[in-house]
Amino acid sequence: MLAVVMRAPGDVGVEEVPEPRIEEPGDALVRVVAAGVCGSDLSVLRGLSPLPRPVRSGHEFVGVVEDVGAGVTALRRGDFVLAPFSTSDGVCGHCRRGVTIACENGTLFGEFGPDGSSLDGGQAAFVRVPLAGTTLVPLPGAPPDDLVESLLTLTDVMSTGHEAAVHAGVSPGDTVVVVGDGAVGQCAVLACRRLGAERIVVMSRDPWRRRLARTHGATDLVAARGEEGAAEVTDLLDGGSGRVIEAVGTLEAVRQAIGCARPGGRIGYVGLPWGITLPLWELFGKNLTLGGGGANIRATMPELLDDVLDGTLRPGAVFDAAYSLADAPEAFHAMDARRCVKAVLRP
Amino acid sequence: MLAVVMRAPGDVGVEEVPEPRIEEPGDALVRVVAAGVCGSDLSVLRGLSPLPRPVRSGHEFVGVVEDVGAGVTALRRGDFVLAPFSTSDGVCGHCRRGVTIACENGTLFGEFGPDGSSLDGGQAAFVRVPLAGTTLVPLPGAPPDDLVESLLTLTDVMSTGHEAAVHAGVSPGDTVVVVGDGAVGQCAVLACRRLGAERIVVMSRDPWRRRLARTHGATDLVAARGEEGAAEVTDLLDGGSGRVIEAVGTLEAVRQAIGCARPGGRIGYVGLPWGITLPLWELFGKNLTLGGGGANIRATMPELLDDVLDGTLRPGAVFDAAYSLADAPEAFHAMDARRCVKAVLRP
Repeated sequence: MLAVVMRAPGDVGVEEVPEPRIEEPGDALVRVVAAGVCGSDLSVLRGLSPLPRPVRSGHEFVGVVEDVGAGVTALRRGDFVLAPFSTSDGVCGHCRRGVTIACENGTLFGEFGPDGSSLDGGQAAFVRVPLAGTTLVPLPGAPPDDLVESLLTLTDVMSTGHEAAVHAGVSPGDTVVVVGDGAVGQCAVLACRRLGAERIVVMSRDPWRRRLARTHGATDLVAARGEEGAAEVTDLLDGGSGRVIEAVGTLEAVRQAIGCARPGGRIGYVGLPWGITLPLWELFGKNLTLGGGGANIRATMPELLDDVLDGTLRPGAVFDAAYSLADAPEAFHAMDARRCVKAVLRP
Repeated sequence: MLAVVMRAPGDVGVEEVPEPRIEEPGDALVRVVAAGVCGSDLSVLRGLSPLPRPVRSGHEFVGVVEDVGAGVTALRRGDFVLAPFSTSDGVCGHCRRGVTIACENGTLFGEFGPDGSSLDGGQAAFVRVPLAGTTLVPLPGAPPDDLVESLLTLTDVMSTGHEAAVHAGVSPGDTVVVVGDGAVGQCAVLACRRLGAERIVVMSRDPWRRRLARTHGATDLVAARGEEGAAEVTDLLDGGSGRVIEAVGTLEAVRQAIGCARPGGRIGYVGLPWGITLPLWELFGKNLTLGGGGANIRATMPELLDDVLDGTLRPGAVFDAAYSLADAPEAFHAMDARRCVKAVLRP
C-alpha cells in the first residue's frame, strides 16, 4: 500500500510499504478515508520536531474499521471512526482526569514522543490502531461525504482550537484575541463563537485567511503584527483583552499574545513552542495566566462531534486543498509555502 | 524622623529624613506601627530588582492615620489601617476587575515600578499615602497588640500566599505541593488549609521552617530539592500533584514546581522571577497552566482580614524576629543570611 514517509528533515515522500495487520488483541485495522496534513508535520519537515528515524507520517485521520483484534468489543468492522492523534487506554489516572494526551500507555501516530516512541501514521491507505476500543471514536453510522472534512478536523485542529479557547477562559459575552490565522487559529475562532464570545479579534494579513476568519465568526481583523499589532489591539480594546489565544508557536507570536492581553488576563497557547524560551517576567509583570499544551483530543472530541453531526459546527472549510496520497509531498510543500491553509489527503 | 534607605545594592541604612506631610487632597499621613522586611526588599539589596536611585524602603506596613487631605472621606484621624504594597484608585478598569496591582494611577511603596516611579516606603516613622481612601483598609477599631503581626502579613505575604493558592486552583479536598519555606510559602500553606486542601506537601530542609510549616497545616515534608525532590514528590503522590505553588523565584524552584506537577496541573507562582528564562516546552509538554504575578493586595485583603480579626487565620508567626527601626540593617542581613524567616520593624 502507499504511505507518506518522513525520511529526514526536508525529505517527505510516498512509498510502497507493507500493509499493517492486527498484532495485539486490542488493535483495530482502519482503512483511511481522509487524512490531514498538520502544522506539526511541517515542524518535522522543517527539522524543528525530533525525527530520530524515518516514520510513516500523519496523525489526523478518519476511516472505516476493517478488522479488530479479539479483545476489542467497542468497535465493529464497518464502523466509521475518528482517530485522536495519540492512543489512550481510558483507565489510567491521566485519562480519568481527561488528560488523555498523557496516557501512561499512549503513543503518538506518525511522530515521536519524548520517549522516542511512535506509531505508523495515518497518511496511508491503512493504519493499525492499538488500544482501539478506548482510542477510536465510532460514529452512529456512515457520514455523508461532505461531512468528512469537518469530522477530520476533530482529530486535531478543531479540538485543539477548542482547548485553546477553554485555556483562555472564553465564556459567553467575552472579547477574545486570536493570534494565528492557520487552521488551528481558524478553528479557535469557531470555538470562541461556539462558547459564546461576542467579539473575536483575529490577527491576519492574508486576504483569504481574513475572509475565512470572518466566515467563522471574526468580528474584527488586525493586519499589523508584533509590537505594532499588539498596540493596535490594545487601542481597539481599550487596554487589551482578558482572553487571548496563541495558535502559531513562535516567540514573536507568544509575545504578540502577551502584548494583546490586559493585566490579569489569560492566554491559551497551543502552537508547538519548539525553541521558545521566555523571560517569565513578561508574564508575571502583567499577572497573566498561561495555559495550554497538546490537546486532549480523545476527551474533547465527543462534545464537539455532536455539534458537527447536527450541523451547528462546520470547521471543514479549513481544508482548502485536496490531494491524492500519491501527491502528498506537494500537499506538504503547498502548506509550507502558505499556498493553502490546510491540505486533506484522500487515499 | 528615622527611615530605612536603600542607597545602592548591598547598602541599606537608616537615616534621619524630613517627615512627610499631606501634599494632595487624596493623601493620608500614617504613623507606622509595624513594618515588614520582605523578600523583595532583599531582591533590591542583592541588586536583582531595579534601584535607579536611593529610595526610602518598605512596602509592608500598618499604622494609625495621623492626618488626611481635604478629599479623603473614607478615613479619619486615629483609624488603624493596613496598606497594600501599592496605591490604587479603585475606579480604573484594572481595579474594577480586581487587578489592583495594575491600577492606572497606582505606585509602589519603597521600590520602583517598570516606569521608574516609586513612593517613599513604610520602613519609617511616618508615610504619606496618596489615593488613601481607596488604598488603605481601615479596621473597625484598634487591634490588640498581639494581632498586629498577623495583620501586617495581609499587606503582602499572606495575601500573596493566598493568591498563589488561588492561581494553583486549590479547592476543598485537594493535594497541594508548596515549593518554598519562606514567609510566602508558609502563608501559602495557611491559605491552602483555609481553602480546604486535605494534603499539603511542603518542600523544606530547615528544621525551624519545617516545624512552622507543620503548625500551619503541612501534612508532608520533603527535604530533597531539585530533580531529586521532584522525583520524591512524584513518588509520594503517585504521579505528582495537580496543584503546585512556587514561592521562591528562582529557575531551580520553578523547575522543581514543574517537576512536582502532574500532566494537566496548575502552578501558582508568586516568587519574583528576576532573570528567569524558561523554555516553554517544559510547561507545554506537561499541559501545565502557569498563573501568578504580584498580588492584588487591595482586592484580596478584605476577605482575609475577616478571618484574622475573628482569629481563624493567624499568619503572624512568620515574623520570627523583631527589630527597632534603628536596627533595620541588621534585620535585612539576618533575613538575607536565612537566620530568620521574616523580620518585623517596630518604629
